[in-house]
Amino acid sequence: MINLRNDYSQIAHPQIMKVLSDACLNVNEGYGLDENSQRAVHVIRELLEDNSSDIHFLMNGTGTNKTVLSHILRPYQAVISCDTGHINVHETGAVEATGHKVIVCNGIDGKLDRELVEQAFYNHTDEHMVMPKAVYISNATETGAVYTLSELKDLRHICDKLGLYLYMDGARLGVAMQSEKNNIKWKDLSSLFDAFCIGGTKNGAMLGEAVVICNEELKKDFRYSIKNGGGMYAKGFIIGMQFYELFRDGLYNELADNSNRMADMLKKGLIAAGYRMEYDSYTNQLFVIINKTQAKELSDKIIFETIREKSDKQMVIRFVTSFATKEKEIKEALRIMEELNR
Amino acid sequence: MINLRNDYSQIAHPQIMKVLSDACLNVNEGYGLDENSQRAVHVIRELLEDNSSDIHFLMNGTGTNKTVLSHILRPYQAVISCDTGHINVHETGAVEATGHKVIVCNGIDGKLDRELVEQAFYNHTDEHMVMPKAVYISNATETGAVYTLSELKDLRHICDKLGLYLYMDGARLGVAMQSEKNNIKWKDLSSLFDAFCIGGTKNGAMLGEAVVICNEELKKDFRYSIKNGGGMYAKGFIIGMQFYELFRDGLYNELADNSNRMADMLKKGLIAAGYRMEYDSYTNQLFVIINKTQAKELSDKIIFETIREKSDKQMVIRFVTSFATKEKEIKEALRIMEELNR
Amino acid sequence: MINLRNDYSQIAHPQIMKVLSDACLNVNEGYGLDENSQRAVHVIRELLEDNSSDIHFLMNGTGTNKTVLSHILRPYQAVISCDTGHINVHETGAVEATGHKVIVCNGIDGKLDRELVEQAFYNHTDEHMVMPKAVYISNATETGAVYTLSELKDLRHICDKLGLYLYMDGARLGVAMQSEKNNIKWKDLSSLFDAFCIGGTKNGAMLGEAVVICNEELKKDFRYSIKNGGGMYAKGFIIGMQFYELFRDGLYNELADNSNRMADMLKKGLIAAGYRMEYDSYTNQLFVIINKTQAKELSDKIIFETIREKSDKQMVIRFVTSFATKEKEIKEALRIMEELNR
Amino acid sequence: MINLRNDYSQIAHPQIMKVLSDACLNVNEGYGLDENSQRAVHVIRELLEDNSSDIHFLMNGTGTNKTVLSHILRPYQAVISCDTGHINVHETGAVEATGHKVIVCNGIDGKLDRELVEQAFYNHTDEHMVMPKAVYISNATETGAVYTLSELKDLRHICDKLGLYLYMDGARLGVAMQSEKNNIKWKDLSSLFDAFCIGGTKNGAMLGEAVVICNEELKKDFRYSIKNGGGMYAKGFIIGMQFYELFRDGLYNELADNSNRMADMLKKGLIAAGYRMEYDSYTNQLFVIINKTQAKELSDKIIFETIREKSDKQMVIRFVTSFATKEKEIKEALRIMEELNR
Repeated sequence: MINLRNDYSQIAHPQIMKVLSDACLNVNEGYGLDENSQRAVHVIRELLEDNSSDIHFLMNGTGTNKTVLSHILRPYQAVISCDTGHINVHETGAVEATGHKVIVCNGIDGKLDRELVEQAFYNHTDEHMVMPKAVYISNATETGAVYTLSELKDLRHICDKLGLYLYMDGARLGVAMQSEKNNIKWKDLSSLFDAFCIGGTKNGAMLGEAVVICNEELKKDFRYSIKNGGGMYAKGFIIGMQFYELFRDGLYNELADNSNRMADMLKKGLIAAGYRMEYDSYTNQLFVIINKTQAKELSDKIIFETIREKSDKQMVIRFVTSFATKEKEIKEALRIMEELNR
Repeated sequence: MINLRNDYSQIAHPQIMKVLSDACLNVNEGYGLDENSQRAVHVIRELLEDNSSDIHFLMNGTGTNKTVLSHILRPYQAVISCDTGHINVHETGAVEATGHKVIVCNGIDGKLDRELVEQAFYNHTDEHMVMPKAVYISNATETGAVYTLSELKDLRHICDKLGLYLYMDGARLGVAMQSEKNNIKWKDLSSLFDAFCIGGTKNGAMLGEAVVICNEELKKDFRYSIKNGGGMYAKGFIIGMQFYELFRDGLYNELADNSNRMADMLKKGLIAAGYRMEYDSYTNQLFVIINKTQAKELSDKIIFETIREKSDKQMVIRFVTSFATKEKEIKEALRIMEELNR
Repeated sequence: MINLRNDYSQIAHPQIMKVLSDACLNVNEGYGLDENSQRAVHVIRELLEDNSSDIHFLMNGTGTNKTVLSHILRPYQAVISCDTGHINVHETGAVEATGHKVIVCNGIDGKLDRELVEQAFYNHTDEHMVMPKAVYISNATETGAVYTLSELKDLRHICDKLGLYLYMDGARLGVAMQSEKNNIKWKDLSSLFDAFCIGGTKNGAMLGEAVVICNEELKKDFRYSIKNGGGMYAKGFIIGMQFYELFRDGLYNELADNSNRMADMLKKGLIAAGYRMEYDSYTNQLFVIINKTQAKELSDKIIFETIREKSDKQMVIRFVTSFATKEKEIKEALRIMEELNR
Repeated sequence: MINLRNDYSQIAHPQIMKVLSDACLNVNEGYGLDENSQRAVHVIRELLEDNSSDIHFLMNGTGTNKTVLSHILRPYQAVISCDTGHINVHETGAVEATGHKVIVCNGIDGKLDRELVEQAFYNHTDEHMVMPKAVYISNATETGAVYTLSELKDLRHICDKLGLYLYMDGARLGVAMQSEKNNIKWKDLSSLFDAFCIGGTKNGAMLGEAVVICNEELKKDFRYSIKNGGGMYAKGFIIGMQFYELFRDGLYNELADNSNRMADMLKKGLIAAGYRMEYDSYTNQLFVIINKTQAKELSDKIIFETIREKSDKQMVIRFVTSFATKEKEIKEALRIMEELNR
């Protein structure tokens, strides 16, 4: 079976595993206060060309989003999200569990823009409604799209104007930054966002997300929020070691690059074979429209995820490539898909 | 420097690491629904001689405690804890963050007993007060003590009588079960508790706690609570693999046994050298009373944690042994301590 | 100035006030456990032809909604609401503050129907999403519409099928039940809903909402939830006295009837004068489309509320009648409005 | 039966009732934005000799405490309270329901002092524990004591030193200010506290508590917090009218004075009759030790509350006087009590 189910099916990239194995019995300070974590902070700051942002290592994506949002919002404040946003759809109400409403906008390709934010903001007029205070975006989005620099500058601008925090969920930031459609640089990030995270779990790490807090007023006491939210990791040094390895010499981008190249090859092949895509993706997730009968047959050969029914006869399935996807797997997958569509 | 700071300073026991390394690129289903997790469930159920309990793998201790308690309590219900209880002292209000009061009892050696529970229960008389509904105990306790079978049966009995759930935080269950003072068997646990957890992080695992839900009425929808609380781990199979290794052939007990033996050797040596213990511990944590001047000198030679001032001149420090502690380290530590007290 | 701003501008109907004045120094048991509250429960049960439902008196609408919903939902469960629903728009996230997501459906006239509920339910497929567990409707809706019996039976049916609780926010239940479009009887209510409330504040009472809990499994410990949510009223007997007066001899319906008749007269006159309505209302709220220049002029003569811009030139304003609105006020208002539109 | 159960058994003082009756059909702006509320703010500011504090009117005591505390605390912050504090004992976890731990200190007479606060503060050392950020005191305390000016200055001083907010629950502030032991002036309050409330419900009002926010940085968005917490009252003007009446010409103090005088007469008589008091009260609550057999007999003649067992034979009961208590009632109560103890 060819695995195209997701980008977190395997423990870690072997290079990451080796780092951990080699350090197996080293003695470290707990809770992320260790030297490994400090070194990881250092290389990330260098990449961001930003020495002033605070960087923390958390365990997982949902935990990261809810911790950041509950940290930056007052009880009556809310976060604006695209309808497809991970916090809105796929976190079992983890943000609401911290007391905050997610204000939903219907965006295109999983993206928010200036108008949507402005509209959501001005719909909330007084103390009888929640107060919009943060904007949540995902990059890459949940449908595989990426933001351009000018789109992000627009969002930054409207957030500044309206007094909103801009937070980027970068669970798949690697493939976003390596996307052919991307024109943002790592050094742009700190000035675009009040806070963002850099996902490790979906890009070759065993676990871990790096939270970067750029806005000075949001930095205070973030470690209290991590623990209060239940997300403090005794062996935080494990995440530090991984992020150091991912960022010390470009591994993070290489792994994301592999994911994207494999997805691109797959996409081109699928289109050539007559398949249509549900969303226009330029990262490692492809949303393919297939017949239900095809889907059934396919499930014996490729591991994939079913997204939803599209019509009586059709459905949308998802193929995801990862750091571990190999060219021969894509070729084989394409052979299967071509045969299926003959 | 000899490391006696805690039992989570090192990544994992080498045998655990090897399992992960060997499986590095294996493809697994996500979110704990994989075969490794199922195998781990199987061996734990065999150990417990209990095929009906639900077993889930969570990431960390605080996350585990707050997830279980928020899952089993209604909004107006509260949990009874010893004053020294981890949920009361060391979780930055994570339980309260889910909306529940921790009712505090002043116990001895970090333990609750029938009378304390009864008193706490009957102090709450009507709907103007929180409703006690769960009892939280730690075994081993935060001060190194362990519960006897008769103590636990007493607690079970009073909980049954008063309609309370009994939950055991087993972050250090390994050293408790291997303690010379322990007379509980693994097969006793499911009938003693409504839920409990088996700690991996502090006994050789890289990360992970196994939650065992014994009470039928508490089983429903627990996976929703994990995700809602922010603690769902995409690569849950990593924890499954570790717990399978820990429990398939007795490794878990062996590691705990090492911790206990090292602690015992250290304790006896310290007492022989004239030191007094703050608490009577029979597991891997020792709370030693030393002079402040000694503490200062010691900090160059042994890594330990300061607990608190005891008097103007004295303080309490903590030594913790672990799966990785070696006899020669204990001997060297004792040599240093003897010299210090000369 | 003619007051058409809302239905809670005045303290209370004089008959209510007289009851309170007469009882001013009577001694009562606190917290709603008094005889007045019991008598009020009795007359409401008679009206509902239902002796088994539990009835509680709360202080205000938002407090009522959040208390009921937090009482009946587990942490990971969510409530389905129409986009215009009071809990979604006008409660500053009070429901989310208790930890629960509000799942939003775009309904017509502020109503949910079978299809919307079904769709919202089936969109949530597993533990990575919130679990829909309750359906919130308002009757009358926030735009002035009312549900028919067959619509409610449809909702009841789909809720039964899907295992959902059906809760009706009856902040304006009086005008709904007295609406010309209404064909529900009071005795229908207990079998249609798991819980509902009967609003006093917007129908002549000084304050107070009666919560009726019909579903046996939701009754337990509701008084704990009231206090836990901060809504317990020491002088609960004040609400009991009012509801007894409102329901002992039909006053509640009379007051609602006045509101509706005044609104109907106003609506017909406005339409005759050439105004268009934004929503099709059959209760005491009218949403009138007027030019912005008209609105400005009008604000010196009638107290009303501005709802939103409709276009560059037009806006939607709201007129609300109440128990206290008099025919001559409506006539004068119509005179002003006719003049304005000439 | 003589009513000594509590100070909220009756609707309101007749003068309050008259004000409401007279204004029964007046038209007011909703949600506390009306002129009556503004006038009430004005007279309270005059009394406090403080024009800059923000004043809001809330519905009830528990709602007030939880709203203020959830407004001023960040998620990981906690409030320090005396063990007997209302938020700790009698609010069914309403503060914890907003996510915050109540740190409990064992005080004397329901009071906190400098040392207790300091100790609670320094017990919390890092991000693995909640961060103490507010101090909650009640004045009068739950056991009838009052704070002296020097005690409050001490608390203010330690709070300033440690960066803590000082909040006073003044549910019974009237009897505190009128107590013979009181030496605080109304004009002292704004500089002593970051926020406090002035209780209406227990001193002759029908309902209502005035929240005074003195600390500039806590003022922002408080109305959002009121609504978010479920405590916004559509007819807020009703509270405004009452507080204006209570404070425009000294009625508030007169009513409290009556409560205190009646309690004092009762206390002296009881002591003369040989009874002992459980707490040393100088306000309107007396905690009397009586035999259980006496208590049983008494319950046919006086309405009182049972506090707890004191021993096998004895118990503590509570007598509370109010604005409505009359001298002849106290005389009769004393006659009964004397007879009982003969």
